[in-house]
Amino acid sequence: MKIVLLGSGNVATHLAKELFKAKHCIVQVYSRRLDNAELVAKELEAKAVCQLDELDADADLYIVSVKDDALSEVINNMPLVNGLVVHTAGSVGMNALSRFTNFGVFYPFQTFTKEAQLDFSNIPVLVESNSDANTNLLINLGRTLSKVVLKADSEQRGKLHIAAVFACNFVNHMYCLADELLKSNQLPFDLLHPLIMETAIKVQKASPTTTQTGPASRKDKKIIDKHQQLLHDKDELSEIYSLLTDSILKRVK
Amino acid sequence: MKIVLLGSGNVATHLAKELFKAKHCIVQVYSRRLDNAELVAKELEAKAVCQLDELDADADLYIVSVKDDALSEVINNMPLVNGLVVHTAGSVGMNALSRFTNFGVFYPFQTFTKEAQLDFSNIPVLVESNSDANTNLLINLGRTLSKVVLKADSEQRGKLHIAAVFACNFVNHMYCLADELLKSNQLPFDLLHPLIMETAIKVQKASPTTTQTGPASRKDKKIIDKHQQLLHDKDELSEIYSLLTDSILKRVK
Repeated sequence: MKIVLLGSGNVATHLAKELFKAKHCIVQVYSRRLDNAELVAKELEAKAVCQLDELDADADLYIVSVKDDALSEVINNMPLVNGLVVHTAGSVGMNALSRFTNFGVFYPFQTFTKEAQLDFSNIPVLVESNSDANTNLLINLGRTLSKVVLKADSEQRGKLHIAAVFACNFVNHMYCLADELLKSNQLPFDLLHPLIMETAIKVQKASPTTTQTGPASRKDKKIIDKHQQLLHDKDELSEIYSLLTDSILKRVK
Repeated sequence: MKIVLLGSGNVATHLAKELFKAKHCIVQVYSRRLDNAELVAKELEAKAVCQLDELDADADLYIVSVKDDALSEVINNMPLVNGLVVHTAGSVGMNALSRFTNFGVFYPFQTFTKEAQLDFSNIPVLVESNSDANTNLLINLGRTLSKVVLKADSEQRGKLHIAAVFACNFVNHMYCLADELLKSNQLPFDLLHPLIMETAIKVQKASPTTTQTGPASRKDKKIIDKHQQLLHDKDELSEIYSLLTDSILKRVK
């Protein structure tokens, strides 16, 4: 299978490496900036291109993995190829690609940063396409990279993406807020490392509803009041503390 | 050193096991309910008691590790022993124990659930007491359990506890909300496992301000609007989504 990869960001880079490891043939890497395309292409023995009209018209699969806000521009300016065109975005419907004959979605459900080493074999890959044949092609491709490949329609994928915003982006933001609080009290963020790991490890085997600890889950009004007093000069932290504490309290049996 | 342990909850149970493993001599375990005291005591070759006036008056160290809201009752009804009396609570000042001659705090900074196996050697232990001699005793005790033992006063410990609420309790709550969202769309929570682990692993080596991903960190208004539309029938999730998204947006450079 001849693959063309469009994009040179975090997702594109990780995906490219995994496809190469799994012995797929990536013929071209496109990026608006040639130097970025070259960075990715050189590791894959692929050709770097920076113009959409230079794209190989005969590839079997085109993976468009650019930032969500650049996606429609790339899609609408690509030549009308016959091969299967997919994007890798969580919150973009499949129909964004409906100008092509064969189209679909190949969504690896993970947070990607360029430097991080990832075990791709555990990353769920969600696929969807406009025909059974194309879906099978994407499932088979997914299985060469991961043990977890699922079909999901655009609506389910959209909801999954929101769940990821809560479980990843908002979680990381909680780490940021904790970091700010510690810094303003001359305490290092490192102190939180074991706690952060343990919190993540616990929910690998149990439902998060059973692993909650802390003052709100104990309905410990005295400690909650004390925390709110200590945060009284920090409006934003105080507002977030109250909203999330109330949200936990509502669910305590 | 003769140690008396008061409490039979998550923190008390973990601490008891670690002290026993480190060859400390725990003579008694107190709990309001004798069967609970016995459950912990039997593993330590200690005596179980359920009345505060049965406490051994000659122990060197009394560790009061009961729920925060039961703490003052236990402290005020204990006999006025001469040994060092400490509590293990993050948000309770050391002076809660000032009726004793020797008092302090021994705070293991981790989230404890009974069943979870923990590597205690990496858990930060924060200590404080009313004299240098007592502080040294607590530091030496801490070092038999953990590689990370620090002095921290009650104010610092209070702030650290709030940071833990953000980095652990609120994080777990984000997992809960994601779980609810997935369940209402017939998707399993398991799909989030790799994402949750990766989010925690990333910040073990990098500052959380550098590891943020997702629509808010990209200022991707289109996706944010789409998510808010999809959450329009869920008031609570929608409010949390907006508040945390705004909080991330404020910090994007």
